[in-house]
Amino acid sequence: MRIFCVVSYNGTNFVGWQSQQNGRSVQDEIEKVLERIHGKKIRIHGSGRTDGKVHAVGQTFNFDTDKDLSLSKWKYALNTMLPQDIHIVSCHYVYGDIHAQYSAISKEYHYYLNMGPYDVFQKDLCYQLNRSLDLEKMRSAAKIFVGTHDFTSFNATPLSLQKNQVRTIFSIDIIDSKDLVQFVFKGTGFLRYMVRMIVQTLIEIGLGRLDENKAKEWLEAKDKNVCRYNAKPEGLYLYKVNYNFDYHDKEVIYEN
Amino acid sequence: MRIFCVVSYNGTNFVGWQSQQNGRSVQDEIEKVLERIHGKKIRIHGSGRTDGKVHAVGQTFNFDTDKDLSLSKWKYALNTMLPQDIHIVSCHYVYGDIHAQYSAISKEYHYYLNMGPYDVFQKDLCYQLNRSLDLEKMRSAAKIFVGTHDFTSFNATPLSLQKNQVRTIFSIDIIDSKDLVQFVFKGTGFLRYMVRMIVQTLIEIGLGRLDENKAKEWLEAKDKNVCRYNAKPEGLYLYKVNYNFDYHDKEVIYEN
Repeated sequence: MRIFCVVSYNGTNFVGWQSQQNGRSVQDEIEKVLERIHGKKIRIHGSGRTDGKVHAVGQTFNFDTDKDLSLSKWKYALNTMLPQDIHIVSCHYVYGDIHAQYSAISKEYHYYLNMGPYDVFQKDLCYQLNRSLDLEKMRSAAKIFVGTHDFTSFNATPLSLQKNQVRTIFSIDIIDSKDLVQFVFKGTGFLRYMVRMIVQTLIEIGLGRLDENKAKEWLEAKDKNVCRYNAKPEGLYLYKVNYNFDYHDKEVIYEN
Repeated sequence: MRIFCVVSYNGTNFVGWQSQQNGRSVQDEIEKVLERIHGKKIRIHGSGRTDGKVHAVGQTFNFDTDKDLSLSKWKYALNTMLPQDIHIVSCHYVYGDIHAQYSAISKEYHYYLNMGPYDVFQKDLCYQLNRSLDLEKMRSAAKIFVGTHDFTSFNATPLSLQKNQVRTIFSIDIIDSKDLVQFVFKGTGFLRYMVRMIVQTLIEIGLGRLDENKAKEWLEAKDKNVCRYNAKPEGLYLYKVNYNFDYHDKEVIYEN
């Protein structure tokens, strides 16, 4: 039986989603709990990785089990045993070839930034820029990145590891409310550091330190060495992973 | 020369405001920075203590110095050297007998509670009750506490240490926005645990586990053993300390 879960985590005290030799990962914490439940190692498969300090509102993962538990019991058992910075939002039975990573068709990332005075309460939850930005300039520049592009210049994966660096960004919305700025990225998928590198590039444009044309040049260059910007991880949230099925409020999901 | 400061701190990783034998206190962190600036121990005087994990939006303190720095330099120097969970909001020169504790005439505390699903991002910033409350019942019961009362039943200070346990609460407002509940307490001063004990008593009433009349009985009993409730510290914020002078936007303050 395959269980598909939506999970939220506060990335502050994690080295990232994926198991690593050193440090606390979200995957390890969840697998530790599943091992206690099953008495054996259970591997989980996430929709993708998130980096250290990066948060998730709706990361997804699946695992296979021989335990016959109701979905509410799965959710209750996991949340009772998991640490306080990880929370299972929902559990679903899935059938067919449904897989958190391979079935994903698009993702939504949010990035939060504070233009106002430094805020001790949000210090790990958004980028404390504490300066004003020209948001209109940034909204205009964001259009450069929308569409299907080779994002070689805006990602950190060594070339040898990532063959195809073409991705489609459906939209980048920049929403402001008082001093808080929210970037909403929707796309087919995002390369490592891609959202953060684009965000910092837009910030530099908004601060008047970089010209919009430079960003366009960089994108067209398909060159890993042109863009050295990378916005701080604590502002980034994996908000939602989309599939060709709707998993909210559905207990059992069959592949379409 | 006396400097008066407004300071905000995220209480999560502090044992409280006051220096203690073990653990990290806000006072110690600020005094450590002042010692580095002065080359000698400088004592600060806060408006009052806050307990472990309790936050402050506008705590106040003062210290005496022989350094002739501008206010913006004081603020900059302190914030540059302080850890990220403490932030100096403003600095002021004060004259006369102005003292953060003795000159204070009233205080405002806020308490935040989440009735909705568990939130990993707010886990240290509000009480994760994750249950619905009958707010109308609570608003009605809150009136019991408003006014001048002997709060012996709603505080934790051993009797020997606190002679006068009479305090005046001007108002208790309970404001809700979606799943977030905000309690606003305004009063002449608050005894140790007083806000948290009243909040948890109101929560028990809102959950239907305690009758409003019981709370009234407890208050009238003036007995330390009747109320065993104490709401979690992470929901509490020292929001503002009031004086008979307005310190916002004023560089130099003389006693009225």
